[in-house]
Amino acid sequence: MQTLSQLRESYRKYADLNTFRNQPIELYEPVNYIMNLGGKRIRPLLALLGAQIFSDDTDVALPAAYVAELFHNFSLVHDDIMDEAPLRRGQPAVHKKYDINTGILSGDVMLIHCYNKLIQSYEGAVALQLIDIFNKVAIEVCEGQQYDINFETHDTVTIPSYIDMIEKKTAALLGGALKMGAVIVGASEADALLLDDFGRKIGIAFQLQDDILDTFGDPEKFGKKVGGDILQNKKTYLVARSFEKADTQTAQNLQSLFNDTDILEAEKINSVRSIFQKLDIQKEATQLMDDYYQQAMVSLEKVQVPSDRKILLKKISDDLMQREK
Amino acid sequence: MQTLSQLRESYRKYADLNTFRNQPIELYEPVNYIMNLGGKRIRPLLALLGAQIFSDDTDVALPAAYVAELFHNFSLVHDDIMDEAPLRRGQPAVHKKYDINTGILSGDVMLIHCYNKLIQSYEGAVALQLIDIFNKVAIEVCEGQQYDINFETHDTVTIPSYIDMIEKKTAALLGGALKMGAVIVGASEADALLLDDFGRKIGIAFQLQDDILDTFGDPEKFGKKVGGDILQNKKTYLVARSFEKADTQTAQNLQSLFNDTDILEAEKINSVRSIFQKLDIQKEATQLMDDYYQQAMVSLEKVQVPSDRKILLKKISDDLMQREK
Repeated sequence: MQTLSQLRESYRKYADLNTFRNQPIELYEPVNYIMNLGGKRIRPLLALLGAQIFSDDTDVALPAAYVAELFHNFSLVHDDIMDEAPLRRGQPAVHKKYDINTGILSGDVMLIHCYNKLIQSYEGAVALQLIDIFNKVAIEVCEGQQYDINFETHDTVTIPSYIDMIEKKTAALLGGALKMGAVIVGASEADALLLDDFGRKIGIAFQLQDDILDTFGDPEKFGKKVGGDILQNKKTYLVARSFEKADTQTAQNLQSLFNDTDILEAEKINSVRSIFQKLDIQKEATQLMDDYYQQAMVSLEKVQVPSDRKILLKKISDDLMQREK
Repeated sequence: MQTLSQLRESYRKYADLNTFRNQPIELYEPVNYIMNLGGKRIRPLLALLGAQIFSDDTDVALPAAYVAELFHNFSLVHDDIMDEAPLRRGQPAVHKKYDINTGILSGDVMLIHCYNKLIQSYEGAVALQLIDIFNKVAIEVCEGQQYDINFETHDTVTIPSYIDMIEKKTAALLGGALKMGAVIVGASEADALLLDDFGRKIGIAFQLQDDILDTFGDPEKFGKKVGGDILQNKKTYLVARSFEKADTQTAQNLQSLFNDTDILEAEKINSVRSIFQKLDIQKEATQLMDDYYQQAMVSLEKVQVPSDRKILLKKISDDLMQREK
């Protein structure tokens, strides 16, 4: 078994070897740029761990690990255009460093190269299974992004539809990366499904944590602007649950704050946060996040391998959820 | 064997049955919109004919035919954003009818559904072959589009690089559609390659014809604005060959016309056209177009089936090239 840092190092070497040297350079340089911007590389690690939980031959999952990261970066490039986000990982987003057309076209070719890598690296039934898993995830990610866009213009969003959106947009790829790793080393269908479920539940827990930290986090530690979701009127779990719990007057106050385009940023953040606090939303969000985390652990427990093979998946989950052991 | 109109009708029914009814509707309605805007449906017909040349069971190629059209429409949606084209087939382009973000995301999901359709419709080695063919074509189309964008800012473009660009951007998908049809019905590798080559050569001939008509066509018949390429400083074959043939003075005149931003549209079109005429470029372009057409026919001749099975492919080529029998 390789340690997390050994797996990270294997991935780094593989990704370096896969730097695009194709022509035209105007199409592929932006791909190399975004792929080298850093990030946690959580998806490739999950693909490798999805293999390693069953087998010591994790290198065989490196192409799938790379595909998970390439697809994630494709979605970032296109999402950053849609969200008009100027920065990505502290550096100019692709559509800012180059231009929007480059972002669109380089993103497209990244998506196609995901399939190309899968089909060049795997054979027969395994290749077809991987493409099927990847397809379903990729469709979910697009649909999740569309739901997220839709929610911006909805006054209220139900909690089930919010959870469905974050599962598709964020969590499906974590599950899919694990499942691809498992399928490559011949895991049983039941075990592959359990790992998929584990990844999805961890992904949902992680997104709920992100929602909480975006509003209640320590500005020193969070990395993004605390209160950003409130300023963007994002329909997070906090908002969805508030509208469920609030009396008519409080709901009206919350709605007015969302509709108010003249209010000072700090005042808006503080006022919305006060309503969340009055309704005890942070506690409920934390409870739900813990529930999903526990559900993830239950699925992981059920995977039919000795428990010592699950240690790294637990560790990476704890790292992701910033939990102390 | 089915006639061209029977094949068109089979395809129309299949495409109707495949109208997207998925959620969210905001993502899929634009897909149905562009898929129903009309167009010649040349790519699906080629996929069906690629099967029918070898087999009477053409229906088995319908999913691949649909994929060829879905991919073509994906590329139109994204290209129209990049080109800021307001209209497509006389109707608002997707990014105009909806918005740019919708164009990006609906385009993405179209591309993913191409793979999904292939993997849901075909099995085993055939499925893998189809995905491999499709991948290579899709990558070529992106690379061709990038070369086309690059050429806008280049002063001159060589003829081989121009032909390479149009082969990738336009012709590769015609060849790929035929090749997919052939592979589905178990054609030999040699025959599948010959059909691919036939499609690519016809595609190049067709694009050269389009270049000629854009400058020298009858405004009543052409359908697009005659002179549009000149106004956009497009580096077509006509331009590439002119710079090759022109003496220093003529080349300078041509360059000045391209650089002149104050010149009246009609004057620019007429002046550039005069230079083409002086250099006898239309004749050379027509000659080259005919060469590619003949090369296409040579490849078609070599396919190992009785000549009566090739009649419809010849007919559709003649229709495309507006040749009288």
